Amino acid sequence: LHPGTAPPDGEAPDGGAQNGGGLDGEAAHGRAPDGVSLDVGEPVGGGAGGPATTGGLAFTTDSYVVTPLFFPGGDIGDLAVNGTVNDLAMCGARPAHLSAAFIIEEGFPVEHLRRIATTMAGAARAAGVTIVTGDTKVVQRGKADGCYITTAGVGMVPSGVRLGADAVRPGDAVIVSGPIGEHGVTVMLARGRLDIEAELVSDTAPLNGLTARLLEACPDGRVRCLRDATRGGVATVLNEIARSSEVAVIITEEAVPVRPVVRGACELLGIDPLYVACEGRMVAVVAGESADAALAALRSHPLGEEAAVVGRVAEDPPGLVLLKTGFGGTRIVDVLVGDPLPRIC
Amino acid sequence: LHPGTAPPDGEAPDGGAQNGGGLDGEAAHGRAPDGVSLDVGEPVGGGAGGPATTGGLAFTTDSYVVTPLFFPGGDIGDLAVNGTVNDLAMCGARPAHLSAAFIIEEGFPVEHLRRIATTMAGAARAAGVTIVTGDTKVVQRGKADGCYITTAGVGMVPSGVRLGADAVRPGDAVIVSGPIGEHGVTVMLARGRLDIEAELVSDTAPLNGLTARLLEACPDGRVRCLRDATRGGVATVLNEIARSSEVAVIITEEAVPVRPVVRGACELLGIDPLYVACEGRMVAVVAGESADAALAALRSHPLGEEAAVVGRVAEDPPGLVLLKTGFGGTRIVDVLVGDPLPRIC
Ligand SMILES: Nc1ncnc2c1ncn2[C@@H]1O[C@H](COP(=O)(O)OP(=O)(O)OP(=O)(O)O)[C@@H](O)[C@H]1O
Ligand SMILES: Nc1ncnc2c1ncn2[C@@H]1O[C@H](COP(=O)(O)OP(=O)(O)OP(=O)(O)O)[C@@H](O)[C@H]1O
Ligand SMILES: [Mg+2]
Ligand SMILES: [Mg+2]
Ligand SMILES: [Mg+2]
Ligand SMILES: [Mg+2]
Ligand SMILES: [Mg+2]
Ligand SMILES: [Mg+2]
Repeated sequence: LHPGTAPPDGEAPDGGAQNGGGLDGEAAHGRAPDGVSLDVGEPVGGGAGGPATTGGLAFTTDSYVVTPLFFPGGDIGDLAVNGTVNDLAMCGARPAHLSAAFIIEEGFPVEHLRRIATTMAGAARAAGVTIVTGDTKVVQRGKADGCYITTAGVGMVPSGVRLGADAVRPGDAVIVSGPIGEHGVTVMLARGRLDIEAELVSDTAPLNGLTARLLEACPDGRVRCLRDATRGGVATVLNEIARSSEVAVIITEEAVPVRPVVRGACELLGIDPLYVACEGRMVAVVAGESADAALAALRSHPLGEEAAVVGRVAEDPPGLVLLKTGFGGTRIVDVLVGDPLPRIC
Repeated sequence: LHPGTAPPDGEAPDGGAQNGGGLDGEAAHGRAPDGVSLDVGEPVGGGAGGPATTGGLAFTTDSYVVTPLFFPGGDIGDLAVNGTVNDLAMCGARPAHLSAAFIIEEGFPVEHLRRIATTMAGAARAAGVTIVTGDTKVVQRGKADGCYITTAGVGMVPSGVRLGADAVRPGDAVIVSGPIGEHGVTVMLARGRLDIEAELVSDTAPLNGLTARLLEACPDGRVRCLRDATRGGVATVLNEIARSSEVAVIITEEAVPVRPVVRGACELLGIDPLYVACEGRMVAVVAGESADAALAALRSHPLGEEAAVVGRVAEDPPGLVLLKTGFGGTRIVDVLVGDPLPRIC
């Protein structure tokens, strides 16, 4: 198993912040890798050379509880497929098959369900995966906010690929694959409780095409870590990396791609785009000497056209993320306590 | 892929009965096998004999939305582990690893969560599987009935094993692994809205030990089909088999093991035990000449001590399940329309 895996072994699962014996809203938490590599047991009878091994399988799951279900640029179905595809891709795996389990509220319109299923079929096609099994449960009216979807996914990790938040070293380059914060801000605005109008769509997308290209361009361990910047955003991912690898991550604020409309909405909302969820952007840490090759590989893909080197890894101060601001200052990018954007994915 | 797999390909997933454009309560539906065998893509680099194949992997998922969360004999955590272990076992697979995704209501007591996690850890240990990945989402108060759990599972299908509801032939024997209906009746009574007191506990249990013993005792395709009798009960499983294999399934009422307390409660509830969910009982169809060996194998296991041959497969009338009653009569055991016991698993 990869490190970072936390099977509930007589322990309560990570339920976010605990508050007086009860669970409250979603809190940002450590961004351990969500996919795991595993060995599914006995070898399958293979060729003439003896028993074959089944190593290299990656397996992951996520539930999707977004509100609203439909938003500009996608719906819960895109998130459920792309999110799990991306969790596999971040392990360096080639996503192969997904499961899809629906918990549906009684009275949920069948047209909505059909629309979501159509979205999922399209997203699966786009990502090159197949949905091979599923489940459907109907719960009482008032529960489940229309519908919750849980997907799980399996894929193969090519031999030689070994990524991890703990594999980052001083001298490495930190890359972001595109403009950040679009998914989170889009969903916030789609709730319609804020009087902001913006031409903005979710960035939800499958990243496996991008990761394949990157791993090909930078083989032999030169890609250290891949992480999609979902709940908690880029800041949370970088903190996880800094802590796991005991390194400093030093980011140049001006280098981080943020579209003006996202920047404007974040100012009005009083939030920092670095903490806003993306559903189709990743952080890639690569060996310093591979930065150019990595950037070229990412930019050659439609989903990476605006990729940018946003910083570098240093020895000191270990465990911290520092941001060099436009005014020549430096500030610590802290771990978020309490998620400003609940029910975003 | 095994037959019976229904990826949502631009189609709405099976959401139970449809009613005026909306979904209503859970309805019993076709009991296609829930696990699938699949090929996860490129072969992994294997031994000297050439590339190894990754065939033989089984993959399945189920969501658990039971009310109440805790009931005599178990809780939602047992169901979530055993249910998915059993879906793998029914494919003839050896369950290896599970994922566990929690959707938790804000304010849900942490002690309850801890108790459920402890149950899951124990159930996983008992079944010989490991929970290797998971997810936790918190939703608003009033949603999710405390907590919903979705598990997915992967396992290996040993070479030569090929089971299916369509593989049953005239002359085969129909076996039930133990007394039926205990889970469903237990959960109904645990809701406390009925004034019935009964000494009864859920039958939730992992069936992979039982299936391994059965497949060992009856090799080479002599086990035709395995199916756990969950939502819709034994009657629904038998109908699925009769239809898929275009055979008649003829059951002797007196041979079906039902504990007196279950029979009594079912009479008071006005339901037929044949339609009541079990979470640790299976229907096994085996070659007629293997009936004795199969029964001996099942009875040698603690979970199969009360296994019984309940009927046989005939040619006519194809697609129907017939019940020979104690009074010498015969009646058709129909497909259930509308589940009498919603939120049972
Ligand atoms: N939303 C879905 N998408 C894809 N396949 C689905 C979906 N819902 C159900 N299926 C498929 O339909 C078949 C029957 O599923 P169902 O959940 O009824 O069986 P089960 O898991 O054995 O029963 P239960 O869920 O009551 O334990 C399985 O093959 C399953 O993979
Ligand atoms: N209930 C649980 N049981 C076991 N492991 C869990 C559970 N919840 C989370 N984990 C593990 O904790 C780590 C972090 O999970 P988390 O869901 O925060 O990450 P993520 O899936 O990348 O983010 P998101 O769910 O917001 O998309 C993963 O390794 C995951 O497998
Ligand atoms: Mg995830
Ligand atoms: Mg995710
Ligand atoms: Mg199911
Ligand atoms: Mg199932
Ligand atoms: Mg089941
Ligand atoms: Mg997750």
